[in-house]
Amino acid sequence: MSVVEDESAETAALIGELYPRTGRAWLVGVTGAPGAGKSTLVDRLTTEIRADGRTVGIIAVDPTSPFTGGAILGDRVRMVGHAHDEGVFIRSMATRGHLGGLARATADLALILDAAGKDIVIVETVGVGQDEVDIVRTADISIVVLMPGTGDDMQTIKAGIMEIADIFVVNKADREGAERLVQSVAASLSLHTFAAGDWKPPIVKTEATTGAGVAELWQTIRRFREQTQDRRAQRQRARQEARVRDLVSRAFMTRLDRTLAAGELETMIAAVADRRLDPYSAARELLHRAIGSSHTS
Amino acid sequence: MSVVEDESAETAALIGELYPRTGRAWLVGVTGAPGAGKSTLVDRLTTEIRADGRTVGIIAVDPTSPFTGGAILGDRVRMVGHAHDEGVFIRSMATRGHLGGLARATADLALILDAAGKDIVIVETVGVGQDEVDIVRTADISIVVLMPGTGDDMQTIKAGIMEIADIFVVNKADREGAERLVQSVAASLSLHTFAAGDWKPPIVKTEATTGAGVAELWQTIRRFREQTQDRRAQRQRARQEARVRDLVSRAFMTRLDRTLAAGELETMIAAVADRRLDPYSAARELLHRAIGSSHTS
Repeated sequence: MSVVEDESAETAALIGELYPRTGRAWLVGVTGAPGAGKSTLVDRLTTEIRADGRTVGIIAVDPTSPFTGGAILGDRVRMVGHAHDEGVFIRSMATRGHLGGLARATADLALILDAAGKDIVIVETVGVGQDEVDIVRTADISIVVLMPGTGDDMQTIKAGIMEIADIFVVNKADREGAERLVQSVAASLSLHTFAAGDWKPPIVKTEATTGAGVAELWQTIRRFREQTQDRRAQRQRARQEARVRDLVSRAFMTRLDRTLAAGELETMIAAVADRRLDPYSAARELLHRAIGSSHTS
Repeated sequence: MSVVEDESAETAALIGELYPRTGRAWLVGVTGAPGAGKSTLVDRLTTEIRADGRTVGIIAVDPTSPFTGGAILGDRVRMVGHAHDEGVFIRSMATRGHLGGLARATADLALILDAAGKDIVIVETVGVGQDEVDIVRTADISIVVLMPGTGDDMQTIKAGIMEIADIFVVNKADREGAERLVQSVAASLSLHTFAAGDWKPPIVKTEATTGAGVAELWQTIRRFREQTQDRRAQRQRARQEARVRDLVSRAFMTRLDRTLAAGELETMIAAVADRRLDPYSAARELLHRAIGSSHTS
């Protein structure tokens, strides 16, 4: 499946072919700070979902550093539990180069798992950057995992995270400060006005290492799914619009690079560097070059 | 200066006008996890730079949440120290909508401060997302602020952060675990091979609340500036290329939106939602619509 990591005409053809078979899988986004125990939680949740008779695809968007090699370790942990279960597909995606490409590759892989018949596709990200938040925000359900004792309080919870949660999980709930964290999240939620009939994000306490609370989490996910079916189409549309916009922007940039003669962009950047040309004027000129060339192509 | 937050023809005209007067300011990127004490450190560093006779512009890219109102609080803290000093300009930028727009607005504001004659422009971000890392990576110097006791060790330091640091700051150095953190960073650096004459990122210990170590930090910044002058042009070029690419991509998307008839995009997204059209084909069609229309415009 490495084809989805370098986007190309083949990827477009592949997605085009299997796209009519997609739309059935339910996309679960799981996000939270590094060390919050997301991998173990997703592992436990997978066991729960499998026991409920559904198949699972897991996409772990793991930031990898040459120093830490995070993704590899993560995979090894995961493999222990579900290596021999054909109902579970696991794939880690590492941050290589720009995250925009990673978001695209994640979306493609989710479609592939959907077409392959997985009932639930879980996308797990380290929820600290805007791009990563975007990946989770447009899932059918967004789960935010917090843990006590790491400054995971209202002062330091990242922007955007509070707003996207459909369910809050306070993981490592046996640790000191768990109850305070629950109350802190509840207090924040109480500042928010929910209309009658609106889904108010519940706070579920879990201990991923023992599995405590994970059954309740799965039941809460099912309850969300039943109670908010009408909102799913809306989210899917937002997801697809963001997707199409991203792809068309990228297609344009590819076209631009093909249109320009070798060294042409470099010459222009050099002019910007020398202050002979400002960045906006350079951009305007490049746009005209790319669009103007359509007469002859 | 709020003009830079909604990009428009006026912004382009403004930047075009003042661009020839830019290129003199030195861009300092400061990043680190929430709560690492970046604001206080930048505040202290500003005092140090002012005492050295240079003017300072500060752009704080503050993630703001309706729940926490982070930016406002941050501004209030900053204002205490430098409110009456005309040699210091401070502006907080909040995350509104997509971060891409924020990066653009930050770049524009940095140019404006540069043209206005500020010697040093400090851009401070919560360094956890790829976009935020990108903002800092292309600065003339990148400073990564760590603090002991919050899992800020090699296991959890975000991808990309280790690789971009020109200087590591271990802030709150009076806390337990500071020495361990210093050694942990040093151990990571020792895995890396530095060529003779290459800048090897030093680790500076600071206590922003008392100011301890901040003078040494400023001296280290000056030393970097002197020793790596030849690399500055390279970074500036990378910064400008990323900038121009971003602007041309955005200009194309604006053009696309203008080209399409009302409801046209919605119809296409609906077709994608109904699985009658796949996202890649939709993107291709939109690209052709936008480019094809250049014959008549």
